[in-house]
Amino acid sequence: MSALMLIGQAGVFGGRVGSCWLRPRAGLFTAAAAMAKSKFDYVRNFETDDACLRNCYIVVRLDGRNFHRFAEQHAFTKPNDDRALELMSRSARSVMEELEDIVIAYGQSDEFSFVFKRTSTWFKRRASKLMTHVASQFSSSYVFYWKEFFGEQPLLYPPGFDGRVVLYPSNRNLRDYLSWRQADCHINNMYNTVFWTLVQSGGLTTTQAEDRLKGSLAADKNEILFSEFNINYNTEAPGHRKGTTLIWEKRDEIATKRTKLPGGEEADVPVTRSRRRVHAHRCDIIGEAFWAEHPDILEGDHC
Amino acid sequence: MSALMLIGQAGVFGGRVGSCWLRPRAGLFTAAAAMAKSKFDYVRNFETDDACLRNCYIVVRLDGRNFHRFAEQHAFTKPNDDRALELMSRSARSVMEELEDIVIAYGQSDEFSFVFKRTSTWFKRRASKLMTHVASQFSSSYVFYWKEFFGEQPLLYPPGFDGRVVLYPSNRNLRDYLSWRQADCHINNMYNTVFWTLVQSGGLTTTQAEDRLKGSLAADKNEILFSEFNINYNTEAPGHRKGTTLIWEKRDEIATKRTKLPGGEEADVPVTRSRRRVHAHRCDIIGEAFWAEHPDILEGDHC
Amino acid sequence: MSALMLIGQAGVFGGRVGSCWLRPRAGLFTAAAAMAKSKFDYVRNFETDDACLRNCYIVVRLDGRNFHRFAEQHAFTKPNDDRALELMSRSARSVMEELEDIVIAYGQSDEFSFVFKRTSTWFKRRASKLMTHVASQFSSSYVFYWKEFFGEQPLLYPPGFDGRVVLYPSNRNLRDYLSWRQADCHINNMYNTVFWTLVQSGGLTTTQAEDRLKGSLAADKNEILFSEFNINYNTEAPGHRKGTTLIWEKRDEIATKRTKLPGGEEADVPVTRSRRRVHAHRCDIIGEAFWAEHPDILEGDHC
Amino acid sequence: MSALMLIGQAGVFGGRVGSCWLRPRAGLFTAAAAMAKSKFDYVRNFETDDACLRNCYIVVRLDGRNFHRFAEQHAFTKPNDDRALELMSRSARSVMEELEDIVIAYGQSDEFSFVFKRTSTWFKRRASKLMTHVASQFSSSYVFYWKEFFGEQPLLYPPGFDGRVVLYPSNRNLRDYLSWRQADCHINNMYNTVFWTLVQSGGLTTTQAEDRLKGSLAADKNEILFSEFNINYNTEAPGHRKGTTLIWEKRDEIATKRTKLPGGEEADVPVTRSRRRVHAHRCDIIGEAFWAEHPDILEGDHC
Repeated sequence: MSALMLIGQAGVFGGRVGSCWLRPRAGLFTAAAAMAKSKFDYVRNFETDDACLRNCYIVVRLDGRNFHRFAEQHAFTKPNDDRALELMSRSARSVMEELEDIVIAYGQSDEFSFVFKRTSTWFKRRASKLMTHVASQFSSSYVFYWKEFFGEQPLLYPPGFDGRVVLYPSNRNLRDYLSWRQADCHINNMYNTVFWTLVQSGGLTTTQAEDRLKGSLAADKNEILFSEFNINYNTEAPGHRKGTTLIWEKRDEIATKRTKLPGGEEADVPVTRSRRRVHAHRCDIIGEAFWAEHPDILEGDHC
Repeated sequence: MSALMLIGQAGVFGGRVGSCWLRPRAGLFTAAAAMAKSKFDYVRNFETDDACLRNCYIVVRLDGRNFHRFAEQHAFTKPNDDRALELMSRSARSVMEELEDIVIAYGQSDEFSFVFKRTSTWFKRRASKLMTHVASQFSSSYVFYWKEFFGEQPLLYPPGFDGRVVLYPSNRNLRDYLSWRQADCHINNMYNTVFWTLVQSGGLTTTQAEDRLKGSLAADKNEILFSEFNINYNTEAPGHRKGTTLIWEKRDEIATKRTKLPGGEEADVPVTRSRRRVHAHRCDIIGEAFWAEHPDILEGDHC
Repeated sequence: MSALMLIGQAGVFGGRVGSCWLRPRAGLFTAAAAMAKSKFDYVRNFETDDACLRNCYIVVRLDGRNFHRFAEQHAFTKPNDDRALELMSRSARSVMEELEDIVIAYGQSDEFSFVFKRTSTWFKRRASKLMTHVASQFSSSYVFYWKEFFGEQPLLYPPGFDGRVVLYPSNRNLRDYLSWRQADCHINNMYNTVFWTLVQSGGLTTTQAEDRLKGSLAADKNEILFSEFNINYNTEAPGHRKGTTLIWEKRDEIATKRTKLPGGEEADVPVTRSRRRVHAHRCDIIGEAFWAEHPDILEGDHC
Repeated sequence: MSALMLIGQAGVFGGRVGSCWLRPRAGLFTAAAAMAKSKFDYVRNFETDDACLRNCYIVVRLDGRNFHRFAEQHAFTKPNDDRALELMSRSARSVMEELEDIVIAYGQSDEFSFVFKRTSTWFKRRASKLMTHVASQFSSSYVFYWKEFFGEQPLLYPPGFDGRVVLYPSNRNLRDYLSWRQADCHINNMYNTVFWTLVQSGGLTTTQAEDRLKGSLAADKNEILFSEFNINYNTEAPGHRKGTTLIWEKRDEIATKRTKLPGGEEADVPVTRSRRRVHAHRCDIIGEAFWAEHPDILEGDHC
């Protein structure tokens, strides 16, 4: 019998001697299982509290694991695969809708950053809970929405993302963090755009393209694109140059509602509702304009 | 032009006064983007190191989020849905195969614990990286392998799991942790087994079943099952009573290999290879027997 | 021989078997000591980084241990012993002079708080180093300066203080912290003033005084002091009501300097120098006035 | 009036607008002070929990700050000043007597390590409290006991020590930590002994002595001491070569007690009592012998 077995096992532990804590001997048959459990209960106390400092923005950043290989195996278009980028955004939106205290999210390439508001008390601000929930929701969404963007092309294996938590005490620090990521997007995308243009349209091997770009500055890259391939970098797709910024926005939506009219009949009547939704932007977030247009994203530093 | 715009934006920051650090003014067109990026680079330093104490077992435990609702919406069988339990194990195996330093994993209901070996140096033992990677890989696998277990029944939305990290300094502490989870499985499963038997076979409402079990002990529950429903709890499925334990095991496998024979012809020759694979056990892990049979799981306390 | 002995000992460790890391066997006599040391060197890696989040004020607060007993045994005057309070301030000044990144310190009763500036990089912002250094310097100063304030009255045993570190991300949070401590000073001092007046001048026992004050409000206490003892609480010593605030201030100081005059002779000439010194204030720091007068204490939130 | 002023100040805060939390307006005169205090109370929540992982040894190590300069200014004898070393040990004993969960302490030069037992629950294992209390008690004791060892030679200024906390999960790790410190003592002391012998007895300048020792091994140093100065390093004072180890020991002590004899008279009768005291050892703690003689210092790894 299982309960009897449990008593036997308890006996094994109870038999240890010396400086360890005392374990009560299971005297009554019926309570053995509960006693066994409570005997092990002390292990809970090894958990440590990892609550994030208050009044700081909590940033969770996810990065794809081995996405270079993942992109190869799923034949991603170079330098940017719009299906993949949109799937990233779709997954990020799924995270935001689950965790409403995220006020802004920014993504580019195979990374996405999520910013929890300063005053958030989600999960009691426990870093481990926040980052694992974000990583989990993002990853399950990535697989779940795959076919919305890749259609019949099969997903070959479940992808992995890793995450981290960083705290930012001031609005300036947070904006500088987001600027850092967008500047990174800019630099990488310009390089990749020229690199793959040289390969795909210019007929260079990847090694030749690499050599050609060694030490080149932004102006040189612009010049190559413009004079050799007639491409104006600044008219390239904004999503490629600027990444994707997700924020909550209230917009009026018109729905029809079945309503009883004064005369007694029913009819579909148009109703305007203000709804809070996640909207995607593909614009500059380094300058002031974006923040001036969306003053509600950040809370004041004076709190 | 984007690079020019960037200079303009840098100017905005450069204009701040007072006690802040000085930002160099972008003087040359060509280096503006890189300068902009390096200007923001300081935000990296807000990351803190969260390396786990050495020579401790690192346990990552995942718990399903709102799985009560998830189970309802996907019509899980009660008290145990084998498809769901096997999907959990399949996802856990996927985690172990990705993160080879996991020496044992234990799961029950909607939770799974993963134990990294004491001497692991994966991700430099960074807690955030370890737990997010586990949470991510598990979640993407859960969606990826869904249809292997649920066939045509659709997954309605991407599920979420949250995680935590706990350290255990000694073999005894680690075994007590695993015992705690298995004792929890035992207690919950016995309760659920009787409860749903009373409802499904005994015709009680859920409220009546709840009342009937209020204050009952393990022996009472065994008695109800046996005398009223002729069920011997201890012969119920081991996976339900004991949960699932995953470990690495070396087993000999026979494969055929196309080989050139002495005579010059080729033939398929059977070859025995020792392969390390994840195997599932559904047995007691509280007592000594399991550990005596698998002495390689734990490292010595004397190190 | 010591070095030989060391080799012998190394042999003992080298003899352990199993899964532990390999230890090199000391082959040559001469290098044994250094080898022994390097063999143990791995224990360094168990230290964890505890750097404080950047751009936050770092507050170290010290509290006297068992100071109730300490005050009894050293016959401190009640409700306030000026010698003891001044010794606390003297010790705090010694801390500030050692650790120049402390921009303000506030003390009352047997506690003192030290605030490091947001941008401080002392000890690489390592919390453990900051708080132990403050605790150590304060404690050695307390004993060192004892006789300056207590004269011939002997110090009976070395006192202890414990400390903690708290981070505050904004100026408002920091000011609220200091206000919290000053409000605490106010409430305690008013209570103690009335209590000891009732005992020392009113002839009540301590139990009677306690009963008398049970549930009394600030206005009641003011009233007792004023109508029964003709004491106006607000003209009591500011240091008792407000605690002590230490800040750095630049003041012009006139020194004489031996200088060669145009005529060739030497003379003592008065020279004005601006010198940065720690100055004590015993005023309100909750309101705006103090901060308006000393705008350099806090750095801007906009950084 | 102070309370009125407080209301006025509260008004200032109450006037802030925007997204900050609401602060109640102080309506009644009498409760103003308490309200002011409770208004600031939220700042407590910025403290984070820093409890040390259970079942690990907690080591606090103190290091003298600028002790090179301190030794110069107080004319410490070279290479070892016994007064200074004994003062360090006296201060360490004072710490052990205050904090009884310290099972062993080891010191050499200007450093001292204190080991709390694995199962200690002092200060709820809060790292900050443990290390600041140790640093404080040690520092105040150092000044307090100064004249016991230095007599009339004055202490010129209050010295500082900084500290850190390190956790060790196993007995082996802890012993390797202590071995690391003792091996460090050995290497430094041998170097210093030869160096100062060359300077003080050999007439070399410090630069010449440094050059002479560059690249020399332990055997070379032993040889210099023996052949040139007739010094056998291994008969040098054990305290210099091995440092000081403090442990608790039970020893029988004979006291006289005034007792009434059967005949009715009183007499001083010798009484044997077992008393637990801190005892100093100056022996090897790297090998097994010391630990075999004192089996009670360490708790088992099997807990």
